[in-house]
Amino acid sequence: MPSPAALAHAPLLVPPGTGASLVRALEETASRPAREASATAPDEPFLYVGATLPASLRSGRLLWFHSVNAGTDALLAGGSWPEPALLTRTVGRMGERIAQYVLAWMLAECQRVPEHTAQHARAEWRRLPSGLVAGSTVVVHGTGRIGRAVAALLRACSLRTVGVGRTPREGVPGFDRVVTAGGAGELEELAAARWVVCTLPLTGATEGFYGAGRFAAMRGACFLNVGRGGCVDMDALEAALRGGSVRRAVLDVLPEEPPGPHDRVWRLPGTVVTSHSAGVTEEEDVATDFAACWAALAEGRRPALAVDTGRGY
Amino acid sequence: MPSPAALAHAPLLVPPGTGASLVRALEETASRPAREASATAPDEPFLYVGATLPASLRSGRLLWFHSVNAGTDALLAGGSWPEPALLTRTVGRMGERIAQYVLAWMLAECQRVPEHTAQHARAEWRRLPSGLVAGSTVVVHGTGRIGRAVAALLRACSLRTVGVGRTPREGVPGFDRVVTAGGAGELEELAAARWVVCTLPLTGATEGFYGAGRFAAMRGACFLNVGRGGCVDMDALEAALRGGSVRRAVLDVLPEEPPGPHDRVWRLPGTVVTSHSAGVTEEEDVATDFAACWAALAEGRRPALAVDTGRGY
Repeated sequence: MPSPAALAHAPLLVPPGTGASLVRALEETASRPAREASATAPDEPFLYVGATLPASLRSGRLLWFHSVNAGTDALLAGGSWPEPALLTRTVGRMGERIAQYVLAWMLAECQRVPEHTAQHARAEWRRLPSGLVAGSTVVVHGTGRIGRAVAALLRACSLRTVGVGRTPREGVPGFDRVVTAGGAGELEELAAARWVVCTLPLTGATEGFYGAGRFAAMRGACFLNVGRGGCVDMDALEAALRGGSVRRAVLDVLPEEPPGPHDRVWRLPGTVVTSHSAGVTEEEDVATDFAACWAALAEGRRPALAVDTGRGY
Repeated sequence: MPSPAALAHAPLLVPPGTGASLVRALEETASRPAREASATAPDEPFLYVGATLPASLRSGRLLWFHSVNAGTDALLAGGSWPEPALLTRTVGRMGERIAQYVLAWMLAECQRVPEHTAQHARAEWRRLPSGLVAGSTVVVHGTGRIGRAVAALLRACSLRTVGVGRTPREGVPGFDRVVTAGGAGELEELAAARWVVCTLPLTGATEGFYGAGRFAAMRGACFLNVGRGGCVDMDALEAALRGGSVRRAVLDVLPEEPPGPHDRVWRLPGTVVTSHSAGVTEEEDVATDFAACWAALAEGRRPALAVDTGRGY
């Protein structure tokens, strides 16, 4: 973690092509001009704000990397991390965005939005039964910022919210209950769930997290993935969709993006794929979160948005 | 209003075709068997639970009519009301249902649900920008049960909620502000609104409520009608959609339902018509609200669901 003294003098680098308004906001926070990164690392300790870390900058002189994204799996997988550089990330209003994405697709199902849209296109007026999301159970894997934001919004719509975490906890905001991943409580809740939402980051521990076992525990749930595509064993998902233990899937993330036009994901029954659009970060989010990290560091505190580079989030 | 003594003896009538489970629930509440109504009114004071009131039953011996619907405009328009018969209505979870319908279509726009569905059908993965509903202003016409339920849910999604009522009021649950219909405050809020929601009943005072004046005050709002179709001057709406003061319309109700396949409503720009499905009542709702009205009457109180037959709601 850079000391306030180190922070006071380090040059601030950004990749070529960074938007002008973001650059201005970063410069204002850091009280110094931002430099465009070149092919070689500076000779002195430096700061970097970007999406990826070029090999040439994976240097012991990197003091702090602020990621413009929330997920840092691709960044960390891109090469060994130049410890002890600090890694922070942008969450922004991502919790709120992802929560609204999840609720949008739940309500679209209950209110038959795609069916009504199709009826309208055919100039057809036919009553379609609609339903309430209220009263149903949603299981949210991941009880961090994103999972909590999803749970809080869904609870406002009178859903029963169950979180799944690595350790049992009580009183997690937004959740009616939190159970331990892999325990009996999780299996019980997966069987009761009308909705199962993945908000997990991709780490060694979450790769293929949704496999045959978890899907078999479901009893017709709708599975929504707003975490990472690599958390899902796609063969197991396909079998579950064909077998009925998963009724429907809404996939904003896939193991490989973008999928080609002949990818099997387009032919999965009851599935809709969206284009990794649930949790976009905007320049405003990056500027806000960079400023929050800066303020913490200037006071010698570890930023709340710091990533444990070993754990991966 | 029937006295507890009158209630104790009056026969309970239902129209032919009433569902068996609803009949059982009504019989349990009233502690008497329900009779199928015939072409002539009974000789003694009676109670009736149904959707419409046949002319033969528009009798001075009708003590209490419980409507299985929330809107009683068609019922009251069907002939003069046999005063002093009590009219009560079923609201059930309609506020919650309508609120979720409204939120579903707002989120569908922000999250591009129809566009993503169409992309999926084409096996196309292309990033589409999505937006948050948070921070935008919604104007809700009607500050009764339905309007409040809509406002409360939207406020949970961080929208700013403005109610429009007949009289200025403060502290109406769910609303950040309530302004008076036709006043300067309403015009100001219509100009600021991203969304305008009609939850009005159809009465003499609300027929054609949305005319050229109100639509001209809007600056590109999305107009959602979950009230009554007759509240809207369709010529004015068409002009507003073509002129841009209304960006989009989501119409669950129309002046005439069902619209024929050649109705102009199918050709309005930026419009989706749904099939009067936002606020369905289910048998469970009827049974629950009938029981609540019964309990009030048995104690000599006026039920909260009583309709002012002169005012129309």
